[in-house]
Amino acid sequence: MIALEKLSKKTVMCLHICVGLDTDIKKIPQHLLNSIDPIFEFNKIIIEKTASYACAYKMNFAFYEKNGAKGIETLYKTIEQIPSDILTIADAKRGDIGNTSELYAQSIFDHFHFDSVTLHPYMGFDSLSPFLNYKDKINFILALTSNSGSVDFEKQKLTNGKFLYQFVIEKVNEWNANLNCGIVFGATNSQELKDNITSFKSLPVLLPGVGTQGGSLEETVQTFTEHKNNNYLINVSRALIYTDNTSKFGDLVNQSIKRLDRVIRSIDQ
Amino acid sequence: MIALEKLSKKTVMCLHICVGLDTDIKKIPQHLLNSIDPIFEFNKIIIEKTASYACAYKMNFAFYEKNGAKGIETLYKTIEQIPSDILTIADAKRGDIGNTSELYAQSIFDHFHFDSVTLHPYMGFDSLSPFLNYKDKINFILALTSNSGSVDFEKQKLTNGKFLYQFVIEKVNEWNANLNCGIVFGATNSQELKDNITSFKSLPVLLPGVGTQGGSLEETVQTFTEHKNNNYLINVSRALIYTDNTSKFGDLVNQSIKRLDRVIRSIDQ
Repeated sequence: MIALEKLSKKTVMCLHICVGLDTDIKKIPQHLLNSIDPIFEFNKIIIEKTASYACAYKMNFAFYEKNGAKGIETLYKTIEQIPSDILTIADAKRGDIGNTSELYAQSIFDHFHFDSVTLHPYMGFDSLSPFLNYKDKINFILALTSNSGSVDFEKQKLTNGKFLYQFVIEKVNEWNANLNCGIVFGATNSQELKDNITSFKSLPVLLPGVGTQGGSLEETVQTFTEHKNNNYLINVSRALIYTDNTSKFGDLVNQSIKRLDRVIRSIDQ
Repeated sequence: MIALEKLSKKTVMCLHICVGLDTDIKKIPQHLLNSIDPIFEFNKIIIEKTASYACAYKMNFAFYEKNGAKGIETLYKTIEQIPSDILTIADAKRGDIGNTSELYAQSIFDHFHFDSVTLHPYMGFDSLSPFLNYKDKINFILALTSNSGSVDFEKQKLTNGKFLYQFVIEKVNEWNANLNCGIVFGATNSQELKDNITSFKSLPVLLPGVGTQGGSLEETVQTFTEHKNNNYLINVSRALIYTDNTSKFGDLVNQSIKRLDRVIRSIDQ
């Protein structure tokens, strides 16, 4: 199944939560530390307890690369645990000159078999095109990110009257010939989302910034619902997966995601 | 020895060639394919035959990540082959929100023990600061890249009158409190280099784009020499390492780098 179909089958069921497997060994329940691969054991339980409510799983590569080849092994095993009908996102934020991006795309799509990836736009079209040539994948390109540093460059005004991040969205729409582009748009500021939502057009939108980073879940869902835009994924990582640090964490994470799901359904009807 | 000292000890000797170990199994001599790890065997010979003329070795992570955990093992082994007095550059082009960049920095500096890294500026200061906290490393931040896509965003004009890439250089100079920042500046267009060289100030400059990508080695060296700026690294990857594909490739690569070194010395006296 192509990535966009996988995503649509979930969003049409009002499933919008992307579970971020940003698994930090310092934050997982202590009893797991006795196992051979504690990060994998944690991920396995998180996936099992959230799969009914998840529209995607996002694995941030930094959390795995930190442990070198051992971390990569954890990545392989974790991917295998994700049900095949749920979108997988390699949150790798890659971007390089064409011949190099080609190899990054091979790594993420052919070697690891991810359905989608996050990409840095800075280096422009030819740094993205090797990824865009994979027609059955989704390429989430960074537009506005949820961190404080977004003011430094992303929110610089261009002489064409747009903020850099707005110009990125415009270009991504142009580059979406294969209908396999998406964007990353930080949900920390509801007004920014309202001001820009019509520019997203048919692009799937990955929204970090809700939860630990301060964005409002309710306002985010409200905005998409008002604009009859169903094509969004709300990423929740730390605020969900570290709900509890006892042996009961799995069930408590399950209750947490159910609550989030209920909030979304209560608005997006 | 801190990274900047390592680099200075080489540049003061007029060594400016950064050897890019962008090793592609499809391009290496066929006789190496019978070994257990052909990419490592190739890298080992390249390092041995270039070490006397290299001021740095740059490993582009895409070429290793393409092979997953196996590629990471090749990376470990290759790093061990690099003489300890020569700067190592992780050409990983990372950049993420603060808590994630922290883990990427741990991966590259603590796990792999690289002396330096390349970084995407798009997400702003807090995406870079975990790297900048490593005072003994060098952080090469992408300013102007050597690919055609640099026109899409890097060369957009801001309302402050600067191109985005020029504003990045200005900010990197501001953020250089620990004297551990550098920039990446594509050497494909000599006029751009001439127009911007005074803005580099004390930042070490990593220059891709010479060789296969069309930049002129002579003009690049000439420009730095004229400005009495000794703080630069000219990256040469494909044009050097694939000099030959017979069993004599090591000696021929040695002759190639000697020739490049001679050209540089003839100008930068």
